[in-house]
Amino acid sequence: MKIGQDQYRSIWVEDGQVKIIDQTLLPHKFFIVSLRTLAEAATAIRDMWVRGAPLIGATAAYGMAIAMREDASDAGLTLAHDMLIATRPTAVNMRWALEDMTALLRPLVPSGRAEAAMVRAAAIADEDVAINGAIGDHGLSVIRAIAERKGGPVNILTHCNAGWLATVDWGTATAPIYKAQAAGIPLHVWIDETRPRNQGAHLTAWEMAGNGISHTLIVDNAGGHLMQHGRVDMVIVGTDRTTARGDVCNKIGTYLKALAAHDNGVPFYVALPSPTIDWRVQDGVREIPIEERSSDEVSFVHGKLADGSISRLRISPEATPAANPAFDVTPARLITGLITERGIATASAAGLAALFPEHSAVTP
Amino acid sequence: MKIGQDQYRSIWVEDGQVKIIDQTLLPHKFFIVSLRTLAEAATAIRDMWVRGAPLIGATAAYGMAIAMREDASDAGLTLAHDMLIATRPTAVNMRWALEDMTALLRPLVPSGRAEAAMVRAAAIADEDVAINGAIGDHGLSVIRAIAERKGGPVNILTHCNAGWLATVDWGTATAPIYKAQAAGIPLHVWIDETRPRNQGAHLTAWEMAGNGISHTLIVDNAGGHLMQHGRVDMVIVGTDRTTARGDVCNKIGTYLKALAAHDNGVPFYVALPSPTIDWRVQDGVREIPIEERSSDEVSFVHGKLADGSISRLRISPEATPAANPAFDVTPARLITGLITERGIATASAAGLAALFPEHSAVTP
Repeated sequence: MKIGQDQYRSIWVEDGQVKIIDQTLLPHKFFIVSLRTLAEAATAIRDMWVRGAPLIGATAAYGMAIAMREDASDAGLTLAHDMLIATRPTAVNMRWALEDMTALLRPLVPSGRAEAAMVRAAAIADEDVAINGAIGDHGLSVIRAIAERKGGPVNILTHCNAGWLATVDWGTATAPIYKAQAAGIPLHVWIDETRPRNQGAHLTAWEMAGNGISHTLIVDNAGGHLMQHGRVDMVIVGTDRTTARGDVCNKIGTYLKALAAHDNGVPFYVALPSPTIDWRVQDGVREIPIEERSSDEVSFVHGKLADGSISRLRISPEATPAANPAFDVTPARLITGLITERGIATASAAGLAALFPEHSAVTP
Repeated sequence: MKIGQDQYRSIWVEDGQVKIIDQTLLPHKFFIVSLRTLAEAATAIRDMWVRGAPLIGATAAYGMAIAMREDASDAGLTLAHDMLIATRPTAVNMRWALEDMTALLRPLVPSGRAEAAMVRAAAIADEDVAINGAIGDHGLSVIRAIAERKGGPVNILTHCNAGWLATVDWGTATAPIYKAQAAGIPLHVWIDETRPRNQGAHLTAWEMAGNGISHTLIVDNAGGHLMQHGRVDMVIVGTDRTTARGDVCNKIGTYLKALAAHDNGVPFYVALPSPTIDWRVQDGVREIPIEERSSDEVSFVHGKLADGSISRLRISPEATPAANPAFDVTPARLITGLITERGIATASAAGLAALFPEHSAVTP
C-alpha cells in the first residue's frame, strides 16, 4: 500500500537482502532495516519491529532462509526453527510457516537449502498478498451492502492493526476498507488506539493517513458509547489464531468490542486468512494460552516529545505493579462472520468446515 | 485517607484559605494549591486539578464561598453560579451544590453571605464524608460475603478513580475497599488505567499504594479477559450521574466492563452517593448529553520522563484527528446493585424509589 506517493510491501528483498520497516518507530520515523542474520530475524519478531500474524509468518520464513545462508546443516535447520518459534508463542502463522519451511528443506542437501528457502519464503509472502486481496474482495461485499442500505459514509470500527503493516500487503481487516475506497464507497474508520502498545494510534492511523482514508482515533474505552449512539455501522478486526469452531484470539480488548457490538446489533466481522485457523483447537477461552508480556508496556507509553525525539514516559507510581495479557478470546457466538479468502463463513465448526472441507476431516 | 503516614482530605480550609491537591500532577508530584478567587476555583474544576463528582460539588460550594468574599452582591452570586456551572456540564453534584448554595445565600443580606457560604460549604464537605463512610459500610457487606464464600483474596476491578481523591474523603467505589481492608479481609484490586486521562494509573494506583492495598494496574482492554478466566470476583465503579431508573453515566469505558461482567456472571456494583441521582432523567443513553473533551487528551499522554520531569508525548500521526467522549452510560440491566448511603438498591426505578421515597414522588 501507499506511503506518501510510493507503493511498499512490509517485507521485501532488495539486492539479495531481506528488508523490513522497523514498526516500533512508526508513526514518528520511517526506518528500513536489513535482516542479515538469524539472530536479527528473531530479534525483529521478538521485539516487534514486525508484528501481525501474517507478517510474523513471512518474516519467520525469510528468517529461516537467512539462517540457511549462515548454517544449512540439519542442526542449523533445527536451531533456526526453535529460535524463531520461541519469539512469539501465540503466533500460529509462524508455526505454520516454520513447519512448511522445515518440511521443504529437511529432505534437501544442505548446499541447496539456502536458495530453495528464499524461493519458498517469497512464495509464502506472495500467497499472503493473494489471500488478503481475496479477503478484501469478500469483505467489500459486506461494506457495499451497508452503504447501499444506509446512504452516507459507512462507519467502520477497527481494533489494533490488522492492516497492511501486519501482513505483507493489503492487511486483513483493512483489505475490505482499501478495496471499498478503490470502489468509491464513502468510508470513515474509527481506530481504537489499542493499549498497551498503541498499534491503532501508531500504525492503523498512519496507514489510513498514508492512503487518504477518513479516520478518527479513539481510546479503547469509547467504542461501546459510539455503538450505543448508532455511530458504528460495522466492526472489522483481525485475528492471531482462530479455533476450528470459530473462536477468535486477537489483541487484548477485542472481546469487549464484540460484546458491545452484540449488545447494539452492530455486525462484528473478523478478517481471517486461513493459515490463522488452528484446526486442533476448539474452545478458545479454555485452550489457548495467552502470552503475558512485560509490565513495562503498561507502565510506560511511547511517543514523540515536543522536540521531535522519541521517548517513553511512566504513567503510574513506581510502587504499582502491572499485568499485561496480550490477547483475549472472542467466543464465536459474538461474531457475525469470518471473512476468509474463500468467502464469508459463519463463526462455527460447520461454517468453517463448509469452506475448508480438507481440514474439517481432521477436526476431532 | 493516607498519603504516607499523614491523613488528608482532598479539600480543606487552613488559616481561612481553601486548599486542594493539584491532581493533574499525581502520582509524580504532590502539590497543594490555595484557591483565592472565583476564577481560580473555576480553573481548578475546568482544568481538572480537582475531579470526581463529589469533589467537584464540594469545590463548587467552596468556590461560591470564595466568590462571596470578592463580590457578595446579587450580581456576584449569579456570576459565581454561572461561571462555576459552565466548567463541567455533566456534573450533577455540582449543580446540586450550586443550587443549594444559591438558595441559602440569596435571601441573606450581602454582608452576611461570605461567612454563611463558608459554613455551608464545610457542611457539604462533611456530608460527603458521612455519605461515603455509609457507602463503605454497605459495600463492605458485599465484599465480606464474597470473602466468606470464596476464601482467599477478593479480586475487585475498578475503573477510573472513584477514590478518596474524587470525593472529600473515603471515595465512593473505594470506600468499601478501605473498609474491607480495615476489617482485615484479604483483597486485591485490578485498576483500569482509564484512558484518555489515566485516572486509574495516576490516582487510584497512587491511592492504593499510599494505603497499602495490594493492586495491579491493567490496560482498559484487559478486564474482559480477566473475567473470562475467573480472576475478578466483583466490579465496583463510581458514577457521575445516575438516572431515576438506575442507568449510570460514568467515565467512558464503564459500559464495556459492565458488559463483560454480565457475560461472565461477575457482580457489577456502582457506588452511588444520592446527590449523584438525577431524578428528572430516566433513559440515560437517550437523555444524558455526553461531554466531548479536547482531542489532545487522546493524541497525547502525560507522564514522567526518565529525568524525573513531567511531560507529554504524542502517540498518533499529526494528520490524525481524535474524538474524545468523556463518559458513557451503563444501562441498569447490567448492574447488580447500587450501593448508596442508605443501603444497596437494585438498579431500577422501584429499587431507588424504595430507598429514596421522598424523591420517587416527583419522578414523572
